[in-house]
Amino acid sequence: MDFVVIGGDAAGMSAASRAKRNQPDIRVTVIEKTHDVSFSACGMPYNIADPSRPMEDLVVREADVFRKQGIAVLTGHHATRIDRTAKTVSGRTSEGNPFSVSYDTLLIATGASPIVPDIPGLDAPGVMVLKHLEDGRRIKNYIRDAAVKRAAIIGMGYIAMEMCEALRERDIHVTMIKPGPGLLPWMEPQLSGVIQQELEYYGVALHPGVRILGVSQDEKGLTVHGEGIDIEADMVLLAVGIRPNSGIAVEAGLETGPYLAISTDECLRTSDPRIYAAGDCADAIHAVTGQKVWIPLALRANRAGWAVADNVCGKPVSLPGIVGTAVFRVFGMEVARTGLTAQEAVAAGFHPVSGVIQSRSRAHAHPGASQIRVQMVADQRTGRLLGVQMVGREGVCHRINAVAVALHNRMTVEDFSRTDLAYAPPFGPVWDPLLTAANQLLKKIAR
Amino acid sequence: MDFVVIGGDAAGMSAASRAKRNQPDIRVTVIEKTHDVSFSACGMPYNIADPSRPMEDLVVREADVFRKQGIAVLTGHHATRIDRTAKTVSGRTSEGNPFSVSYDTLLIATGASPIVPDIPGLDAPGVMVLKHLEDGRRIKNYIRDAAVKRAAIIGMGYIAMEMCEALRERDIHVTMIKPGPGLLPWMEPQLSGVIQQELEYYGVALHPGVRILGVSQDEKGLTVHGEGIDIEADMVLLAVGIRPNSGIAVEAGLETGPYLAISTDECLRTSDPRIYAAGDCADAIHAVTGQKVWIPLALRANRAGWAVADNVCGKPVSLPGIVGTAVFRVFGMEVARTGLTAQEAVAAGFHPVSGVIQSRSRAHAHPGASQIRVQMVADQRTGRLLGVQMVGREGVCHRINAVAVALHNRMTVEDFSRTDLAYAPPFGPVWDPLLTAANQLLKKIAR
Repeated sequence: MDFVVIGGDAAGMSAASRAKRNQPDIRVTVIEKTHDVSFSACGMPYNIADPSRPMEDLVVREADVFRKQGIAVLTGHHATRIDRTAKTVSGRTSEGNPFSVSYDTLLIATGASPIVPDIPGLDAPGVMVLKHLEDGRRIKNYIRDAAVKRAAIIGMGYIAMEMCEALRERDIHVTMIKPGPGLLPWMEPQLSGVIQQELEYYGVALHPGVRILGVSQDEKGLTVHGEGIDIEADMVLLAVGIRPNSGIAVEAGLETGPYLAISTDECLRTSDPRIYAAGDCADAIHAVTGQKVWIPLALRANRAGWAVADNVCGKPVSLPGIVGTAVFRVFGMEVARTGLTAQEAVAAGFHPVSGVIQSRSRAHAHPGASQIRVQMVADQRTGRLLGVQMVGREGVCHRINAVAVALHNRMTVEDFSRTDLAYAPPFGPVWDPLLTAANQLLKKIAR
Repeated sequence: MDFVVIGGDAAGMSAASRAKRNQPDIRVTVIEKTHDVSFSACGMPYNIADPSRPMEDLVVREADVFRKQGIAVLTGHHATRIDRTAKTVSGRTSEGNPFSVSYDTLLIATGASPIVPDIPGLDAPGVMVLKHLEDGRRIKNYIRDAAVKRAAIIGMGYIAMEMCEALRERDIHVTMIKPGPGLLPWMEPQLSGVIQQELEYYGVALHPGVRILGVSQDEKGLTVHGEGIDIEADMVLLAVGIRPNSGIAVEAGLETGPYLAISTDECLRTSDPRIYAAGDCADAIHAVTGQKVWIPLALRANRAGWAVADNVCGKPVSLPGIVGTAVFRVFGMEVARTGLTAQEAVAAGFHPVSGVIQSRSRAHAHPGASQIRVQMVADQRTGRLLGVQMVGREGVCHRINAVAVALHNRMTVEDFSRTDLAYAPPFGPVWDPLLTAANQLLKKIAR
């Protein structure tokens, strides 16, 4: 059997490698546009922060390792067309030569691409995006070669913030600008305000709510022209979000879901039973709402890749939904969320009630404690826990997992409030901040 | 109504205070043997570590704060007898005067006491236990007044280890000795070995499996006489475990459970419906086994105190079981457990299968990562997750909570392996160590 994979990153390589392990006689071909497979994309900001580390540190496994495993890895091959009748994938190599590969079963794992907004001047050298390892190399080399001292970041999402931290670490002055309102608008201001303070403490200039007119270049460098403000910079990073690389699937007539992500069922099958999709190009079911969502994250990509491999090899696997657990660090702050925000809960047909509490990262009288802020969202009618957002200097990133597991189990806030969570003075108060949030929210639900 | 509470610590004061808030016209009386109420017992080792901090830092609320709330707090009152027919509690004050208090509803929250083994010489000054705030003060004053340079700790449980760290912080040489085998014998040697290395790295001498013959004192100080070894010390700490203070309940004819803890139902009622028990003196249901257990921990004591108050005030509450989540720190290591060990699983009638994995505290190529070791236990027949133990330098203490929530929901390892846990490079690998443990254990379950 010919199992063909388009895209050699997390989902694609997980699937290729596991299929080969599951069933050594299967023929596996991976078609990858770039020359890198299996690298830690999420690690790029931290690598860029350190000029002494080569970008290759982020390569988890070289293409040759997969080739030794018996997988045909075609790097520099850009797939542009799927012929579902002939069951072929065709395209061009980086040298411009046409290629065509036949499949019995196909996995589309084409990932996502940074959104490039429609503003003039983005073709100037020094305007960067960050997605592929090649992008990371380009940014790192440019910082060195152009001796970058000032950077402008368009966007304020989590990649923007991680890059902001990385650039400040290299003593580059950073200005952040975005057209939309506020920092992390999905977050309660009591929580996002803490992050804003942290950014400002580290000397980052923030300009939310500013329409961006264009980027220009002269002998002194780049200028980002916003409405009422010009920002001079040696480098501009575009980080306004990503969108699924689903064009090849759309052209092949496959169904799509939210954000034009490729629509998949619980077995990762697309509307063509011979074709799977996994990773950042595919949608998923949200376990809290039961509705389709597009939340591209690394763990899901890896897990979906494995599940595709198992299904391809006759070990039926269906994945439960995701709950949208995401964490990031920005300077000294940890930020975490899982499940729904109050706004998302309304959109999904719930009747949300929510509350914010402040607690401590260590016990009463334990030295070194810092604040933890928790927002918890529940459904007023059923008492069901719907989501949590959390911000603090320590103990945030792993705490969120307890809520994620609770969401998978459709727990009520009351049941969650009675769980036996850990306590020791260096790690939190007797009542974990999550339990305090639940206890407080219960009072509102009971009304 | 007269609601009387014996014991003014976590469970007792939580109950007293919440009952008064629930129902301001209730008469609440707390009978406390010592002169301290509502202090952070778990914080004592960390306070002892720092000579500049007064022990009073650990008092969460003074007795007078409760008195202002309208609660009669009788400190220095030692309750010695419950008359269930007359519905009175009687005893003697610290001045030796008899007292008697009538109740309509009684809560026994007498806590637990350090076990004092039957070996000669323990009455020497300089032989200490740690339970009440008064014990903490005594130890701290003794270290200062006797200029303690060498300490021997009898016992190697988590209080012993926390005290070991505290004493080393004060540059006191520490020798630990216990009659039983090995360090943390309930733990897989691959995990407990890491803790042993850490203790040895910090210069702690360990002598497990040594029968203790007695303690003697001469002008040079104390000597702990073990079989084949004499340990000289300026101070000896007894930390061989605790047992429930259930004597007053036993004498009143109330039923007892494991370790002679007072037997309670899900509403915290004893075998006398007029009498509740909560905190370290009471038993509980283990949510994994459904069997009675005695696992005295602070969160349960607080939660049970609240539940008693609600039940007393006509708001019926029944608590689900506990899962035995416990964490502690020893020097740079975090140690966590929840649910059952493999041995406990056998005892409870399961057919356990377990595995140990090593993973990392941060992502591939992220600087500063350290090892995390996870042991996961499941039931071979049903695939149900039964427990986890974990050791590492960071990211252990809060991670365990995800497993605790999974245990409350009786998840299988397979379902747990598909939960949407958090990932960002500074906080862990894409596959969280818990998911890797689950993925590996699944292979053993499938056999």
